[in-house]
Amino acid sequence: MDRPYVVGMDIGGTNSVFGIVDARGNILSVDSVKTQAYKEFGEYVAAVAEKLMPMIEAVGGTQKIKGMGIGAPNGNYHSGNIEHSANLPWKGIVPLAEEFKKAIGVPVTVTNDANAAAIGEMTYGAARGMKNFIEITLGTGVGSGIVVNGQLVYGHDGFAGELGHVIVRRHNGRQCGCGRCGCLETYCSATGVARTVKEIIDCTDEPSLLRELEGPITSKDVYDAAVRGDKVALEVFQFTGTVLGEALADFIAFSAPEAIVLFGGLTKAGDYIMKPTYEAMEANVLSIWKGKTKLLVSELKDSDAAVLGASALAWE
Amino acid sequence: MDRPYVVGMDIGGTNSVFGIVDARGNILSVDSVKTQAYKEFGEYVAAVAEKLMPMIEAVGGTQKIKGMGIGAPNGNYHSGNIEHSANLPWKGIVPLAEEFKKAIGVPVTVTNDANAAAIGEMTYGAARGMKNFIEITLGTGVGSGIVVNGQLVYGHDGFAGELGHVIVRRHNGRQCGCGRCGCLETYCSATGVARTVKEIIDCTDEPSLLRELEGPITSKDVYDAAVRGDKVALEVFQFTGTVLGEALADFIAFSAPEAIVLFGGLTKAGDYIMKPTYEAMEANVLSIWKGKTKLLVSELKDSDAAVLGASALAWE
Repeated sequence: MDRPYVVGMDIGGTNSVFGIVDARGNILSVDSVKTQAYKEFGEYVAAVAEKLMPMIEAVGGTQKIKGMGIGAPNGNYHSGNIEHSANLPWKGIVPLAEEFKKAIGVPVTVTNDANAAAIGEMTYGAARGMKNFIEITLGTGVGSGIVVNGQLVYGHDGFAGELGHVIVRRHNGRQCGCGRCGCLETYCSATGVARTVKEIIDCTDEPSLLRELEGPITSKDVYDAAVRGDKVALEVFQFTGTVLGEALADFIAFSAPEAIVLFGGLTKAGDYIMKPTYEAMEANVLSIWKGKTKLLVSELKDSDAAVLGASALAWE
Repeated sequence: MDRPYVVGMDIGGTNSVFGIVDARGNILSVDSVKTQAYKEFGEYVAAVAEKLMPMIEAVGGTQKIKGMGIGAPNGNYHSGNIEHSANLPWKGIVPLAEEFKKAIGVPVTVTNDANAAAIGEMTYGAARGMKNFIEITLGTGVGSGIVVNGQLVYGHDGFAGELGHVIVRRHNGRQCGCGRCGCLETYCSATGVARTVKEIIDCTDEPSLLRELEGPITSKDVYDAAVRGDKVALEVFQFTGTVLGEALADFIAFSAPEAIVLFGGLTKAGDYIMKPTYEAMEANVLSIWKGKTKLLVSELKDSDAAVLGASALAWE
């Protein structure tokens, strides 16, 4: 292979992580910068390039690099820009692909983080060989990457696949950061789980280990309590899985995927979350799909997933 | 063009209509048989072939025919079979493509009626030139055909795009023929509209022209009453459009289509139904898509749409 390596970069609100990846998904080298340290986008690009160029030289220079893939919040595949991201220091429209192409000297492809995870899953993870699947990322928010006929669904404007913002509670739904109410994200994100804990604790007298915790409650806290038989913790997973599974049943009606792959911290709760999710999905799906759709946990390692996913973009 | 014509056939519960179509969407000849008259599938195929073969001979024989496209309830693109249709006389799995290929002697492609409408719309109708759109068929039931990257979404098993069975009322939803409750179809199909009329009439004292009608109420009846200022009729369209528009907003989050094209009898009510639908869609869609998605009425003529749509399959 003339160009045996790709560069993957994940731009997060806190860290920007980038690495050199080979065709088997091995990360040869990895480094990072603090995203918020660069208020000027030009300085940010220069800081990344300063660390990245020596890594590229170490594998033989840019002539060995097929391309660079970047996953970023509100990253647009069609335009190569970041458009109006709420969590990054650069406002408005940021010419991400263009500036990195200039700085690094290889073709650059951009998408959002959930789409990058889906491409990573298809290239190196649980969805290898699949032509139709949906990746759901359960993190600070809920994101999704939809693959149809072996291709990511970008839609007319490059922003398709915002399944975290499908309305799952039409009446009296929870307020979402997007300005609307009842989005899936308000129930199944990390924040959503914490809200569910608070609702149950505030509305019942049920004793719970979770009452004693200080600071923001995480899904790890809920898991630890569930392992010790805590009824509130078990109810939190039951509720979260039910809301998620009901939504997944509707997603199946859209694209009839071979599998739905769940990615993110919440999946570490294992059967506590997977079992109610699968049960609600099966109970609510149209009969022609009963027993047909796999519900899988991502096989991308957390620490590597974002860089791997983004890098996979560059092979396309 | 060596093979300048295609055959389109629409299999309905009552009639099966078939015709010869050219590349511009002109229907050169058309005929039909009564679907229910043939309890044996073999006799049905023979009856269609007996009428169709002379039509094919009249345009120069099978060597002038590129293929045959068939739209059928539960028609599966991947297998070419009708699988467990409730409204046809042949039960279980019917080898539709295989038997018609034998009988007619040209390649045969099968899909369901809503997918056929979407392909027809893309080839000859309101979605010409579009690569990403969703066709919603509002008839006895509610069906859909989803186009992504210029391709129909068939999914892993060939049955994708059952948006009439997305749950729009999670609690106390109307009972659906599919065995579940709250499906879009129970609100926005012809039957759904009639149910809405009955609910409003039974639950209020509001005077209405619709109270005087005998037999099943149609969307044409509601339209006629609305034109005369009937408040119940106006409320029926307002309610139906709101439920539909809310659902469309969620569909946009999936595939970010350039347009949603509505097809079927209900669209004949014009602004009475289109205005509340568009308003609810815009009010409920995620802000990145506000003002971006067109809501269109099909440009396929009712009488020709099914045959044209099915015929368009054969060009692919």
